[in-house]
Amino acid sequence: MYYLGIDLGGTNIAVGVVSEDGTIINSCTTPTLSNRNFQEIIKDMANLSLKLLEDSNISLEYVASIGIGSPGVCNSDTGVIEYSNNLKLLNVPIKYELQRYINLPIYLENDANCAAYAESLVGAAKDYKSSITVTLGTGVGGGIIIDNKIVTGAFNRGGEIGHHIINVNGIECSCGNKGCWEAYASATALIRETKNVIKNFPNSKINELSQNNLDNITAKIVFDAADCGDDIAINILDNYYRYIGIGIANIINILEPMAVIIGGGISAQKDKLIIPVKKYIKEYIYDGNLKSEIKVAKLGNDAGIIGAALLGKKIKF
Amino acid sequence: MYYLGIDLGGTNIAVGVVSEDGTIINSCTTPTLSNRNFQEIIKDMANLSLKLLEDSNISLEYVASIGIGSPGVCNSDTGVIEYSNNLKLLNVPIKYELQRYINLPIYLENDANCAAYAESLVGAAKDYKSSITVTLGTGVGGGIIIDNKIVTGAFNRGGEIGHHIINVNGIECSCGNKGCWEAYASATALIRETKNVIKNFPNSKINELSQNNLDNITAKIVFDAADCGDDIAINILDNYYRYIGIGIANIINILEPMAVIIGGGISAQKDKLIIPVKKYIKEYIYDGNLKSEIKVAKLGNDAGIIGAALLGKKIKF
Repeated sequence: MYYLGIDLGGTNIAVGVVSEDGTIINSCTTPTLSNRNFQEIIKDMANLSLKLLEDSNISLEYVASIGIGSPGVCNSDTGVIEYSNNLKLLNVPIKYELQRYINLPIYLENDANCAAYAESLVGAAKDYKSSITVTLGTGVGGGIIIDNKIVTGAFNRGGEIGHHIINVNGIECSCGNKGCWEAYASATALIRETKNVIKNFPNSKINELSQNNLDNITAKIVFDAADCGDDIAINILDNYYRYIGIGIANIINILEPMAVIIGGGISAQKDKLIIPVKKYIKEYIYDGNLKSEIKVAKLGNDAGIIGAALLGKKIKF
Repeated sequence: MYYLGIDLGGTNIAVGVVSEDGTIINSCTTPTLSNRNFQEIIKDMANLSLKLLEDSNISLEYVASIGIGSPGVCNSDTGVIEYSNNLKLLNVPIKYELQRYINLPIYLENDANCAAYAESLVGAAKDYKSSITVTLGTGVGGGIIIDNKIVTGAFNRGGEIGHHIINVNGIECSCGNKGCWEAYASATALIRETKNVIKNFPNSKINELSQNNLDNITAKIVFDAADCGDDIAINILDNYYRYIGIGIANIINILEPMAVIIGGGISAQKDKLIIPVKKYIKEYIYDGNLKSEIKVAKLGNDAGIIGAALLGKKIKF
């Protein structure tokens, strides 16, 4: 059998056909255009899914289920997206509405949970019964897997690890609170800090790589400057790694999963990221005795589709 | 059948006989004298247990198991206390050693986990499948229950919620790190802050109640002064509640249990504690939508014995 996975994002809707072993056979995307009426978005999801199956020569009778990963508060019992700040959705019965077009079992889960589930089943955490996948991107997302199951929280609001506060009265976060981990550990935070710092260091390699335009600064430029031996970039990154380490240490102090998986664009740095972050985790965990594995994610942007698809196949590979 | 529960503390060893429904039938204590050789301590545990059964007219054949709650890192699989800073123990095979005296199934678990387990089975969280019990005392302890099971962490180091960092570069904690939740939310922290503040306010009711001696200040005195309408005490407590709220909000942002139970001496304040703490939790959780119940613990000091005893009865009542 095959499993359809839909990754509903703020910019694009991505759909994939996934095989029994968690491989994406074929996939396609269409713009979300999130300002539309939700019925229009869901109709597009249905049409895209049916077209993908047709293009892949897979008949509907060979599809076991559809899984949807969506930002926000997703009620997996009712199939309702209760709230999404990103997509401006409130109490949308997406399962019911999508089933009007395609009569298959439909599963709904928060997108960060889908990504964590995928890493746990067929990705970097597949050898571990418990894992937490942290995604460092525009924000900081997270999904918690314990005993091979997604921990969504009692009311589907769990896993918001980016918004746990590491610095009371600290930097303002997009959520309105101050001092959230996201305000220090996201790629956005790295860029903000870099802009702040290099104002005082016009000779930094970062300025050269960004053509002396603050608006051109990306996370990659900071990593590239550090690779060139630029001390300013090295210091900025060291401070950034420290903040990543503090948040992960907090999670380990609380839950101690077998593995913590770091995803998002930043994770392309692999060992250059993992080694210093591990050093800081050891510094900040309770007894300094780090036993959890710290690894980079394996599935990249595919994690959302794969995890959503595999919601219909609730077993460990 | 009956269940023996042993609460191994830094000061006392407490043993209780617990019935099927989680009630303590009879209990007794003896000093731990933790500087002794561990074999001596375990011999005392065995003798105390056997004497308690004799005094209670319960023959050993009616005892299903013995559960031990100990501070530190307890490996429930091997029955070894791997590390306890409190009791100065390192890799003590307590299960093996106690079984030499009493040949019954023996279970071992961290003491804060035992307390949380007891509250979850027969205490304030008995209606909830997932709960976190936070104990605000000399330190801040915690136990996590998900799906009616204790989440000990993959390597028995989870649940150290008191040592998650809420204030990078903040106040030094007993663990050596800075800015741990414990350094702000423990009773010890409340007393420390009170001493700091009232130096500048000699007319505070707190000074009167403590006979102008900083060493006499207890948490209870601060609460009593606030009850008398003392503005200084009210402000100190408001700040304290805020810190309690931040840590609980962090836990809810990460795990969102059905209920958070607050135990320890402070919890005697009941609604005077719960109402302001809830206000701050709402302020600091991601979307302000607090759905988890916040309640005071029900079992008090008995939780340790009851939870340890019920380790042998791994079902929900």
